[in-house]
Amino acid sequence: MVTATALTEYLNAQRERLHQWLDRLVPSETTPPDIIHRAMRYSLFAGGKRLRPILTIATGEMFDVPESWLLPTACAIEMIHTYSLIHDDLPALDNDDWRRGRPTCHKVFGEAIALLAGDALLTLAFRTLAEIPIPDAYRDRQVRAIAEIAQAAGTTEGMIGGQVLDLLTEGKPFDETMLRTIHRAKTGALITASVRVGGILGGVGPEPMRALTRYGECLGLAFQIIDDVLDVTGTPEEIGKTPGKDAVARKATYPRLYGIEASRRQAEALIGEALEAIRSLPRSERLVALAQLVLERRG
Amino acid sequence: MVTATALTEYLNAQRERLHQWLDRLVPSETTPPDIIHRAMRYSLFAGGKRLRPILTIATGEMFDVPESWLLPTACAIEMIHTYSLIHDDLPALDNDDWRRGRPTCHKVFGEAIALLAGDALLTLAFRTLAEIPIPDAYRDRQVRAIAEIAQAAGTTEGMIGGQVLDLLTEGKPFDETMLRTIHRAKTGALITASVRVGGILGGVGPEPMRALTRYGECLGLAFQIIDDVLDVTGTPEEIGKTPGKDAVARKATYPRLYGIEASRRQAEALIGEALEAIRSLPRSERLVALAQLVLERRG
Repeated sequence: MVTATALTEYLNAQRERLHQWLDRLVPSETTPPDIIHRAMRYSLFAGGKRLRPILTIATGEMFDVPESWLLPTACAIEMIHTYSLIHDDLPALDNDDWRRGRPTCHKVFGEAIALLAGDALLTLAFRTLAEIPIPDAYRDRQVRAIAEIAQAAGTTEGMIGGQVLDLLTEGKPFDETMLRTIHRAKTGALITASVRVGGILGGVGPEPMRALTRYGECLGLAFQIIDDVLDVTGTPEEIGKTPGKDAVARKATYPRLYGIEASRRQAEALIGEALEAIRSLPRSERLVALAQLVLERRG
Repeated sequence: MVTATALTEYLNAQRERLHQWLDRLVPSETTPPDIIHRAMRYSLFAGGKRLRPILTIATGEMFDVPESWLLPTACAIEMIHTYSLIHDDLPALDNDDWRRGRPTCHKVFGEAIALLAGDALLTLAFRTLAEIPIPDAYRDRQVRAIAEIAQAAGTTEGMIGGQVLDLLTEGKPFDETMLRTIHRAKTGALITASVRVGGILGGVGPEPMRALTRYGECLGLAFQIIDDVLDVTGTPEEIGKTPGKDAVARKATYPRLYGIEASRRQAEALIGEALEAIRSLPRSERLVALAQLVLERRG
């Protein structure tokens, strides 16, 4: 059992660690051409929850993955998540002015630099992964981790595929199958990969890997359902962006299909499934606590 | 010596090989969500020259790199080149309607899908590199190749950095130092990496690697100078895009600083340097022929 205080302390400590590693991995604000590095850092250090990289750290630590492999991997995942937010907010896609309580990247740096800052974060993520100083005997794990993350960020059942489906279904009728497909790809794939890479770097066998995969899938879907709910019930202060945009864009969401209460119950059931999946894994207390956190979040 | 006919045959054969490998590596036009795969393929199979991946193949073959390592690497580089063209053509950047003699990706598929198709090609490039079935004893070469390509595509002396400098200098005064810095980053870095990865996968030592690097750098700069010249002297049919756009955007180019003739002479001198650099390398006839081709291109 991890108490609420212990979890808060753990989360804060990991956010601090991630901040230090990201600060080391991303060129400084004075490295030329400086505007692109300022734009990358503006979005990367905007105070996100860091759920994905913390999942990577918590999973990797269960299997004694060294910090020098684990933290760059976690940072690469956060870079990919941040690039996807920058591009998603562009006028050509969701056209959002606010993100994490601040003007979006393109509102501050212009569309051209925001587009390139997203490209740059995606590129730097893979450079970071490839530059991890893993001994040659474990290089296969490094290559598998890169492939895992690239697949999760891609078009076939990955993040970009989810964004495309999200666009295509705007304003159209949709059913639960379609909705689950979109949410699994758009958010679930990268969250699942965040958990799985911890296992890949730790060299775990197929059984624990199945457990981690199931945990990640359920957690990822629950996360997106709560995200949909908060878009209806949250205030701008709580969620750091403009609420109600899903309804305006007539996006495929759980609340539109089931209402708020039933959507919350589905998220709760999924978190139950996530916990069940990792019941037999040793040292899983932090993954348990992180799963419960997803249900409780207000922003 | 490679005769003109033999070179043409070699180029056509490599383009055909690349076409087949790309067709295998990129999801089909019917793979859901199909619109993104159609957009990726539209730009990837628009009939580019394939200079970069052919440089990778020609270099790798000098050092007996197996086809199953070399061709996916060459294809990944072409995917990255194509993503950069798609994003560069977007209204937020150069706002071009024509590319390779056809309407640009966003003119056909819309801005949202074009943006995501670029993201998807960049992501698929790294997935492709990470999924090359290299035996574990050579995994270090694979990881070094990924890092090399990611660095060349990035912000610090890489492609994105060059695009940023290109944007920042539009309409501003510039000198030769600035121009070389922009061109080396914008075009030179990925061309140099295209050559170097052939050596990296072949496990060559520091001496040949220095020769390949110098060759790539001179070739890359000469290529961009000729590109600048063709923007002034080429017809839309020859260059497949709208000529004269550099002058309208008041971009930093060689012809603006030195005029057409002096720019051509600089490109010739650089090709001379490129050939000198690889003089002592065995089996370099194809790299020699490819360098001469860069001077002769008309589109």
